[in-house]
Amino acid sequence: MTLVKINPDLQKERDSCTFNTEELTNFFDAGDKYTRKRRELENKIFSIKELKDEIPDEYLSHKEKYENALRKAVLLLKAMKKIGYSRNFEDVHKSSFRESVHTGIFKDGSPFMLQYSMFIPTLQGMADEEQKRRWLNRAMNFEIIGTYAQTELGHGTFIRGLETQAIYNEKTEEFILHSPTLTAYKWWPGGLAHTANYCIVMAQLIIKGKNHGMQPFIVQIRDEETHMPLPGIKVGEIGPKLTFSGVNNGFLGFEHVRIPRENMLMKYNQDGTFKSNPNSKLTYGTMVYVRVTIVFGAATQLARAVTIAVRYSAVRRQSRPKPNEPEPQILDYATQQHKLFIGIATSHAYTLLAYWLWDIYTSFKKDLESGNLDRLPELHSLACVLKVVSSKDCTRLVEQCRMSCGGHGFMMSSSLPQIYGLATAACTYEGENTVSLVKALDQATKGKPLSPTMAYLGERSVTTKWENSVDGIVKSFQKVSIGKLRAAVSSLKQYERSGLSPEDAWNKSSVQLISAAEAHGRAVVMSVYKSETDKYASTVSAGLKTVLYQLVELYAIYMVLQKMGDMLLYGNLTEADVTVLQRRYEELLELLRPNAVGLVDAFDFRDEVLSSTLGSYDGFAYERLMEEAMKSPLNAEPVNQSFEKYMKPLMKGKL
Amino acid sequence: MTLVKINPDLQKERDSCTFNTEELTNFFDAGDKYTRKRRELENKIFSIKELKDEIPDEYLSHKEKYENALRKAVLLLKAMKKIGYSRNFEDVHKSSFRESVHTGIFKDGSPFMLQYSMFIPTLQGMADEEQKRRWLNRAMNFEIIGTYAQTELGHGTFIRGLETQAIYNEKTEEFILHSPTLTAYKWWPGGLAHTANYCIVMAQLIIKGKNHGMQPFIVQIRDEETHMPLPGIKVGEIGPKLTFSGVNNGFLGFEHVRIPRENMLMKYNQDGTFKSNPNSKLTYGTMVYVRVTIVFGAATQLARAVTIAVRYSAVRRQSRPKPNEPEPQILDYATQQHKLFIGIATSHAYTLLAYWLWDIYTSFKKDLESGNLDRLPELHSLACVLKVVSSKDCTRLVEQCRMSCGGHGFMMSSSLPQIYGLATAACTYEGENTVSLVKALDQATKGKPLSPTMAYLGERSVTTKWENSVDGIVKSFQKVSIGKLRAAVSSLKQYERSGLSPEDAWNKSSVQLISAAEAHGRAVVMSVYKSETDKYASTVSAGLKTVLYQLVELYAIYMVLQKMGDMLLYGNLTEADVTVLQRRYEELLELLRPNAVGLVDAFDFRDEVLSSTLGSYDGFAYERLMEEAMKSPLNAEPVNQSFEKYMKPLMKGKL
Repeated sequence: MTLVKINPDLQKERDSCTFNTEELTNFFDAGDKYTRKRRELENKIFSIKELKDEIPDEYLSHKEKYENALRKAVLLLKAMKKIGYSRNFEDVHKSSFRESVHTGIFKDGSPFMLQYSMFIPTLQGMADEEQKRRWLNRAMNFEIIGTYAQTELGHGTFIRGLETQAIYNEKTEEFILHSPTLTAYKWWPGGLAHTANYCIVMAQLIIKGKNHGMQPFIVQIRDEETHMPLPGIKVGEIGPKLTFSGVNNGFLGFEHVRIPRENMLMKYNQDGTFKSNPNSKLTYGTMVYVRVTIVFGAATQLARAVTIAVRYSAVRRQSRPKPNEPEPQILDYATQQHKLFIGIATSHAYTLLAYWLWDIYTSFKKDLESGNLDRLPELHSLACVLKVVSSKDCTRLVEQCRMSCGGHGFMMSSSLPQIYGLATAACTYEGENTVSLVKALDQATKGKPLSPTMAYLGERSVTTKWENSVDGIVKSFQKVSIGKLRAAVSSLKQYERSGLSPEDAWNKSSVQLISAAEAHGRAVVMSVYKSETDKYASTVSAGLKTVLYQLVELYAIYMVLQKMGDMLLYGNLTEADVTVLQRRYEELLELLRPNAVGLVDAFDFRDEVLSSTLGSYDGFAYERLMEEAMKSPLNAEPVNQSFEKYMKPLMKGKL
Repeated sequence: MTLVKINPDLQKERDSCTFNTEELTNFFDAGDKYTRKRRELENKIFSIKELKDEIPDEYLSHKEKYENALRKAVLLLKAMKKIGYSRNFEDVHKSSFRESVHTGIFKDGSPFMLQYSMFIPTLQGMADEEQKRRWLNRAMNFEIIGTYAQTELGHGTFIRGLETQAIYNEKTEEFILHSPTLTAYKWWPGGLAHTANYCIVMAQLIIKGKNHGMQPFIVQIRDEETHMPLPGIKVGEIGPKLTFSGVNNGFLGFEHVRIPRENMLMKYNQDGTFKSNPNSKLTYGTMVYVRVTIVFGAATQLARAVTIAVRYSAVRRQSRPKPNEPEPQILDYATQQHKLFIGIATSHAYTLLAYWLWDIYTSFKKDLESGNLDRLPELHSLACVLKVVSSKDCTRLVEQCRMSCGGHGFMMSSSLPQIYGLATAACTYEGENTVSLVKALDQATKGKPLSPTMAYLGERSVTTKWENSVDGIVKSFQKVSIGKLRAAVSSLKQYERSGLSPEDAWNKSSVQLISAAEAHGRAVVMSVYKSETDKYASTVSAGLKTVLYQLVELYAIYMVLQKMGDMLLYGNLTEADVTVLQRRYEELLELLRPNAVGLVDAFDFRDEVLSSTLGSYDGFAYERLMEEAMKSPLNAEPVNQSFEKYMKPLMKGKL
């Protein structure tokens, strides 16, 4: 089937768009130069036939999915090498967050993911020079394939609870790695199951019976020639998950495995005292980096989902509210706009926020190098809170996009279920959201009370009147955060006075404390979304500027109406304001309507990256649904073998 | 591996439970007699070896999943027949909603689902006596396998938009079924793809060029001997979905297919005028029935999820808030209780609600038979609204349960992702939620304004003070519903006055109108949950009574805090009340904590029905996670073939 034209319903939308979509695309890419570079790379990679799936992954067995992902991972590496593209791990440019080749090739993750994201960066960050010489280059060249194992079957974010042991034997100058229980088995690392032959293992370092805390060790787990697991290594895969079928997550247990002392990563252990717990220093930087990628990733998954849903809503027609007119595009229904436009705005908000956080982080990196760690706790707590609100909001809105497509959003060929899987995963990994908020609170209370992003918490004059402007709403979000924090702390103190231990009082108030931490995150998001838009909008043409501010205002009002209770309690909102805001919200939906398709086009996802029957650029959703269905191996034969084997005997009463 | 003991952490919980769980189980089953019957059936069916999966479905290919589901569907039918169990379609007892055998055997649906839920009931409801003689018995005996096709690729709930035609040819006394476009293809019906050989098809009846609206036709689509599609029939499967991999959803197109006039279902067309559109009369009954099963189903999926999450939270230990104590069970954290206990309460609420709705429906059926249709619009709108709030709430809470299990909740072996899939499907099928609410509003405004469940809307004295009691909260939910409806209607009128057409004014106010309709649903849920608990609690022992009322109160306060904005605006809630309620909520979490495991045990799901590594009755979550992982075909060989084929050449630089 050749589909060269554009669905007229979609063309009409593009013709009536009032701003230059390319201008917005360039901003997302952090410069037009990078838009060009990205498109060049996409053109090259997506034209490689072997990287396309004849039969979509969803039809394959679990084992075939892994084999297909590995095959493509190797071919992609080869292609990237040929093109001369290399990932620069130490000097990341903003535009790299927009890299979409991997999303386009691996709908459900690649078994080499951890090589890039954890194995190489950990060697760079924690190995000494000699160790880098031994392993880093080999890893960069994929002569060895590694992963990073910390989480255990029975233990997650609570580091001290991890059970894997590395007992030092002074006589042989070796460490003996051991998993004393089933719950000590490493569980989850990507690529660990059947792909990696090396692994960085976090284990409790024990010397002469004394525990020196968690330390990183590099352990060879499979033979380089045969790939067989080495003696004492129990390794395998953990089974299917909600998503990430290509990632090959594995388990790993040790039965008294001996490794040379040179295999403990030494950059922070040069003095031989093992006092400097790497988790408290260097890894902060990595953690912040990972969280920035999560915030950006959340914005990106939401952008994908809303692109699909908006385009589908422009071509889907339903009902007939006016008797003599044709069925309208469902994008014309205010309830549909209500579901979708907030998705566009939220994706903008978190994209701007991720870039802003990245700028803080890069400037902080320089401070760190010169020994200034003052802003570290604040930055860490900020990154935790933003990880939580971005993953939570984007997951909810991705799901809203999926449901806005009705039954067809349930089809895997829409890609919406898979996008939901990727989005929701971020709520769990790198610290389940509640745990992250507790950490953020903890860090925040240890930080200087008036650090820049928390300065507003010290403000006293919270009795000012409500203002319906976006700047007024920014302030009201801060008032809510102050109000909720005060209420939670007052409850905490009351519990303490009533005789509870500090830990029990904290526990009893924790629902409120968590909610206050989240409110702080929302105050930051609202304020940064506005201020970064001010900065960016001053550089663009008038048409785009108007639309960007409409989105900021839509976001602000939507959030006020969503958090109306808090706003009434702590923000001095009144019933009359609610009516005005509701009306303005309805007006904004109407104002944004003509630019909805333009706004999602500006995210500039190629069809390969969207990979969606409902969301393709040409808008031929129904043709593509049928085309994809015809790829089903079940449709290759008119009668399935089950008929003769089971159904016929049943129908003939011969069972 | 034999696991006979109980995890001590779980045993401890059971020992300290303060009420009789069996008493509560009997209530769910609508009587102890039915608990016994259900358990007997489960014992018989779950002991059949061939119905167990050696390799879990998640490892299979899409095609294998269908073949496995069909195999089991046939074997289950055989087993049920042998036992002498028959589904009684015309006289459903409440206890039948608790039937768990199918959930235990088909994690992802059965290809015969529509035979039971739509094909046979439609024949019973719409065929005349002659037609019943021809097809009904054959269907009951599974001599023919049928499904029901209404939705089309391009058309959903808007019936008049459906395109499939049935053109009557007076000369040959035949109907010619035809799909004039791709969007006219039937799309979605379960079992249609490769299973059914008959199908009830809804099509526009056209006689002498005049459209007589949608009518039901029974069409043979496959040969009974060979199962080959008949001439002119285009049939196949639609491809993988978020869930229901066993259901074999299909598409169906007609190329001028001729069927005899006797194949139009005639019960409501005896007079030959085809005026009586079946959708406006009989199908109301079916629609209400289907919605009751959705409400009950939502409660059941939530009960499954919360059983898994509570048991896992009792055996999972994490962090160490008090330095010298062991890591606590995560069930001891208030934040975890906050996520889970509302799930128990909500499942109770919707179970009671489904039973209540069922009682109304059965009494209404008698009215219908005697020709009294007065309560029909109200009942229908009530069923629509309750379908929406139950599917929405339960889906959200199922997901909350999944996330409360951290990373392990992401494992398919936990069954939590699959339960989410089943729960969220209900938000879409039988009318996407927003569409359902619009219908409900529409029906409600046509109904008598003071019909029983809407009587409160006519109350005028909404200025009464806030009361913190559950009965006070019930009233405040009604006040909110009144307040929101008035605000929405006032907005609607304002838009009309500003010159908009009624349709455009409705569209612009629809976000508010929908929200008001939902508030009405919530008022009904709160009020019925309380009144049905009053009724039921008066018959049980004191221990259980206490716990049931704690749950109702928890539910009431949780909902007030969730809908705080509305309560402050329309319910006369004050800041001081919020503080009191928050405190009481924290107290209720603590009061319910010792009975959490008892409460989920009382749902009485067998391990086969939960099918969860994290939620098994014995609580050996980690052992089961490993045991399930070992079933992976990938783990059957230490080195996957991809190593020699792709990885080794890569690592040796030979690519």
